[in-house]
Amino acid sequence: MRGVVMRTPGDVRVEERDDPTILHPADAVIRLAATCVCGSDLWPYRGVQDVRDQPMGHEYVGVVEEVGGEVRNVKPGDFVVGSFFASDNTCEICRDGYQSRCVRAESMNDIGTQAQRARVPLADGTLVATPGMPEPDLIPSLLAASDVLGTGWFAAVAAQAGPGRTVAVVGDGAVGLLGVLAARRLGAERIVVFSRHEDRQKLAVEYGATDIITERGDEGVARLKELDGGLGAHSVIEAVGTQESMMQAIRCARPGGHVGFVGVAHDVRIPGDELFFAEVHLLGGPAPVRRFLPELIGLIWDRTIDPGKVFDLELPLEEAPEAYRAMDERRAIKVLLTV
Amino acid sequence: MRGVVMRTPGDVRVEERDDPTILHPADAVIRLAATCVCGSDLWPYRGVQDVRDQPMGHEYVGVVEEVGGEVRNVKPGDFVVGSFFASDNTCEICRDGYQSRCVRAESMNDIGTQAQRARVPLADGTLVATPGMPEPDLIPSLLAASDVLGTGWFAAVAAQAGPGRTVAVVGDGAVGLLGVLAARRLGAERIVVFSRHEDRQKLAVEYGATDIITERGDEGVARLKELDGGLGAHSVIEAVGTQESMMQAIRCARPGGHVGFVGVAHDVRIPGDELFFAEVHLLGGPAPVRRFLPELIGLIWDRTIDPGKVFDLELPLEEAPEAYRAMDERRAIKVLLTV
Repeated sequence: MRGVVMRTPGDVRVEERDDPTILHPADAVIRLAATCVCGSDLWPYRGVQDVRDQPMGHEYVGVVEEVGGEVRNVKPGDFVVGSFFASDNTCEICRDGYQSRCVRAESMNDIGTQAQRARVPLADGTLVATPGMPEPDLIPSLLAASDVLGTGWFAAVAAQAGPGRTVAVVGDGAVGLLGVLAARRLGAERIVVFSRHEDRQKLAVEYGATDIITERGDEGVARLKELDGGLGAHSVIEAVGTQESMMQAIRCARPGGHVGFVGVAHDVRIPGDELFFAEVHLLGGPAPVRRFLPELIGLIWDRTIDPGKVFDLELPLEEAPEAYRAMDERRAIKVLLTV
Repeated sequence: MRGVVMRTPGDVRVEERDDPTILHPADAVIRLAATCVCGSDLWPYRGVQDVRDQPMGHEYVGVVEEVGGEVRNVKPGDFVVGSFFASDNTCEICRDGYQSRCVRAESMNDIGTQAQRARVPLADGTLVATPGMPEPDLIPSLLAASDVLGTGWFAAVAAQAGPGRTVAVVGDGAVGLLGVLAARRLGAERIVVFSRHEDRQKLAVEYGATDIITERGDEGVARLKELDGGLGAHSVIEAVGTQESMMQAIRCARPGGHVGFVGVAHDVRIPGDELFFAEVHLLGGPAPVRRFLPELIGLIWDRTIDPGKVFDLELPLEEAPEAYRAMDERRAIKVLLTV
């Protein structure tokens, strides 16, 4: 089959890879309907993270082709959505809603779903079948549920976005934008997004943002506090993962407020004394997307939400190198790869 | 009046200080019934924190002597307990339960309650009167409510200690020990305390600890996980404030677990990537003791709890230098100063 491999930072190729097979009786093999490039794929692309001959991709939707002997919940022919972490969905951690930290969790990054086919471990726990074969125009939104929507949703839940609360969103990438959508769905009325890019601002407003702030860092924090009466936001979504964005998020939150951080932290060191006196709730990590998948698939299926709009460029799998370039150069928010 | 002043690190004296007076119409002046030395007073004592000619102390119980013209909730003759932060208890942050970050908060450290009298700002919001004049044997417990009990309680609440949850307590000082008491009252059945000191272990068990671990750091974490089946604790109380204790606390918590940290953080830097992949809830800061005072005073008044046992040494105010030495040398858990 054809699949994306990153040879070294910046060197993305589409190559022949071995077809996946059932390795364990809990596995399924799916034929991808679509896949995409994640903001987190840019970390190794830019050399911030080591990479060498790595099959890429962890987002996926598609049709089950084959299942192992233990699989009961999905069958060949089902259209399925899964998270970027495979999970058994039965262990104590999964039952608490933290499937990305399942005791048997396997990262789909180690499998590489920017490909024609993929093996999905722990298929019964990981995959959620849609009510039927989706209309083609629903596929981008279902693919978004696999990571960016689920991640933005988790951030909004972790930040306790809800009625009567002001939500600030640090990061205007796909996750930040879908954090806006999530905060709106969860009932927040005032949603403030930090963004300097006109196309992203536009989508943020479409998804429910009420205010845009173009300043960053402490200037951005000061602008936010001007807007909200000086106390800071009740809820803050951090969707970048740098020292600056994390500190901006913490400083945006009022005492007793909640920060949900989902940007994969790179070289971040949170000063303990500042966090102590900020007195904010902090929760973040790889989103337990599986917790939210049934609900999110439902909202997409009945066309209540349209998270697929974050894909502003669509390319065939063979043009993956251009997809990476477009995202790296910020010419695209997020690129969908048709398979 | 007589009061404690720290001239320089390690140099504690009892000196003549000006008698406090009503400076603002919201003030009260109280005559102390007892005061005490806090673990956090040891930071400047040991030179970890700058200090120069600083009146010391922020814990207090006593009798109201005089009130300003705006004060309605307490009157001369009332026996009162207050927190180490004065707060109006009416602003939006107070109403959310974060009185230590009240928009008008004033630190009692700037006033210095290791003295015969003290001015208490925002008396209506800050002070809670007891149902009557307390029996003398209740005074240590009421004094504990002013900080260490309220702080341990907040840590247990922040860590979501409760029925069915395993609670780990990092730190066996007065706050950690009262975190044990709080966790037990909140319904936790398994409470694991890290401690190497026999006297503290004994009090921990008396307050409800079920397990003691003498190892620290990653060895301690490994021992905890042996005890609890490998997942980590649901709830962790951090009551020290060093890099080692903070990382031990984070590493003790299971994914989705809660860490309540109340040790004043000194030179702590939390690595963002580790916090990200730990996926734990983190909440800490100066405890909003005022939130809990009415409930805690009730539990003390009806003798349901006995937090005053953390005072294992009692000295007259004039012997404050010895009180500091005893705590610094760990000869005492916490020293009560009679006034």
